[in-house]
Amino acid sequence: MILSAHDIRDMALGAAILGAGGGGDPYIGMLMAIQAVEKGRKVELLDPDSADDSDFIVPVAMMGTPTVLIEKIPGGDEVIWVLRSIEKYYGREANYITQIEAGGVNSMIPIVAAAYTGKPLLNGDGMGRAFPELQMVTFHLIGVKATPMVLSDERGNSVVLDTIDNFWAERIARAITIKFGGSAYIAIYAMSGKDYKRGVVRYTPSVAMEIGRAIREAKRRGVNVFDAILDIVKGVILFRGKIIDVARFNLGGFARGEVTIEGFDDYRNSRMVVKFQNENLVAIRDGNVVATTPDIISILDIESAKPITTERLRYGLRVAVVGIPCDSKWRTEEGIRTVGPRYFGYDVDYVPIEVRIRGV
Amino acid sequence: MILSAHDIRDMALGAAILGAGGGGDPYIGMLMAIQAVEKGRKVELLDPDSADDSDFIVPVAMMGTPTVLIEKIPGGDEVIWVLRSIEKYYGREANYITQIEAGGVNSMIPIVAAAYTGKPLLNGDGMGRAFPELQMVTFHLIGVKATPMVLSDERGNSVVLDTIDNFWAERIARAITIKFGGSAYIAIYAMSGKDYKRGVVRYTPSVAMEIGRAIREAKRRGVNVFDAILDIVKGVILFRGKIIDVARFNLGGFARGEVTIEGFDDYRNSRMVVKFQNENLVAIRDGNVVATTPDIISILDIESAKPITTERLRYGLRVAVVGIPCDSKWRTEEGIRTVGPRYFGYDVDYVPIEVRIRGV
Repeated sequence: MILSAHDIRDMALGAAILGAGGGGDPYIGMLMAIQAVEKGRKVELLDPDSADDSDFIVPVAMMGTPTVLIEKIPGGDEVIWVLRSIEKYYGREANYITQIEAGGVNSMIPIVAAAYTGKPLLNGDGMGRAFPELQMVTFHLIGVKATPMVLSDERGNSVVLDTIDNFWAERIARAITIKFGGSAYIAIYAMSGKDYKRGVVRYTPSVAMEIGRAIREAKRRGVNVFDAILDIVKGVILFRGKIIDVARFNLGGFARGEVTIEGFDDYRNSRMVVKFQNENLVAIRDGNVVATTPDIISILDIESAKPITTERLRYGLRVAVVGIPCDSKWRTEEGIRTVGPRYFGYDVDYVPIEVRIRGV
Repeated sequence: MILSAHDIRDMALGAAILGAGGGGDPYIGMLMAIQAVEKGRKVELLDPDSADDSDFIVPVAMMGTPTVLIEKIPGGDEVIWVLRSIEKYYGREANYITQIEAGGVNSMIPIVAAAYTGKPLLNGDGMGRAFPELQMVTFHLIGVKATPMVLSDERGNSVVLDTIDNFWAERIARAITIKFGGSAYIAIYAMSGKDYKRGVVRYTPSVAMEIGRAIREAKRRGVNVFDAILDIVKGVILFRGKIIDVARFNLGGFARGEVTIEGFDDYRNSRMVVKFQNENLVAIRDGNVVATTPDIISILDIESAKPITTERLRYGLRVAVVGIPCDSKWRTEEGIRTVGPRYFGYDVDYVPIEVRIRGV
């Protein structure tokens, strides 16, 4: 399918909900992508199986703290530049562009690249959500290398990085991103069509669009937007309340912190604390863990269901916290070791959200 | 000329004296280079004018804190690797290898590369001494770009860096070096023969050899080693005494600190403080500045004249502090702005050491 401006708006909104508080603001992302589509060519979204085994697939994205991203609204030239640089380094042209994660900005960056280069976008990503570190990608789980990767900033500085493993890629790319001022454009996990089809989380872009469209439809028809969303993603409401505290600090290139929400409606006399590192990672209700990474914890405006990214959380916002099951690729032993709560330093086992919810 | 093992030993020692406390330990450097010459081909040292204007000249070196360098004695494969990487990136083979700075290790790394690749070494460098930051190079003064540069570590991680200016190269390369564990192999300021001949500090390698040879000869003949050195470099003794205090801290990838020396002989009842950042930068005798960067301040063992690099300074050592005039390229307005005492945060004007000494 060819993406319309409506589709892009829907996708930015839905992807930000799947982004679990990370992956960038949907409004900024949408502006970038719609501008690119208006100036550039049409963007075609194709099934992952369109890629031949020998094709060359390049994911593009931004990395860094979203707090910085807000202040440096990106143009589009930089995305083309990283794509061209990695093509030059590999000595071959990309056949397809793809998303590495869901999120308001990171679902859109590949659309910008696709619009300006005329290359089709594949209907999948490497997470089905957003995560803070470079090795937290389903392609990593099947042994695809994050490097050679390209990083560049908006000034024209650029780096080609080639590391012995994906943890080294994370470590070094993070240090460079900090020196770039907090965010970088990247081309990463450039891979064969064969690896892509084996590792991809399928249809994340179209699920995001579906979510956005459902919200739009529900508003138009005056029905409950949350019912519309939760039905698509098999999610649940974890909490409803007002934000009474946000503690945050930028450390090592990440926006870390926690938000405290005081319940109302069914949740009166209850409190929820959500801990985040770019993305929301653990939701605790009255001292009990009710959801953890890799399941998706998203904080949405209680009226409009607009996702509130972690950098936008602030005192007084009235929110609903939703929980959404993650892709099954994350629920393997290796998946949990890579992105489970213990990796992030929380002393709690991963229990699928469907199971946790039953017990609450 | 073809470098003999004797020549290499002499050069490592002399270059460490010119290194002003930085550029690495002469013993480690010598071991590396002699091993390389024994295993590899002969190393030919040629006049800078041997290079044609259109030739491709590649300086190779290590960057990082010398304190770390001591613990990670380098092999040689890494040097070849950075050389090959930058050749690949530029799409052309290096015609000549050269030193970027003087120093016990950084005068030797290019010999290692020359030995294993059979490429000749040009008789010059980019400093005539050692300095702590990447833009502190005479080639920088004439507008040569430090990037594209290659950094790699001993594990196999590597980076190609391309920045908008040499200060950005310093900033980003430094962050990468820290993540590499404190030191990196680099190929930097790859340039044309034309630029090289215009920017080079001529004959630093052979002056270093001459110093080393003079020390060797003086010892054999039982005459004063200091007279032999100072005669070659037109240097002066600034102080003689015993180290009574060394304060140091690693900060931002540099070994910073200061050493306090209590005088004896002619300097009884006197004290000298030498401040360093990898290299010795300012020498203060009884509160009076007697020498500053870019002139060379070296601290040598009072008996053997063996240079004591800043990371080897310790309580109790009996030392002579010598001052050596820097190359005239550093004494320009742009030179002083780049490496003068004010750049390093010292509130003192640069006055050539010959002039200062007259007033003391």
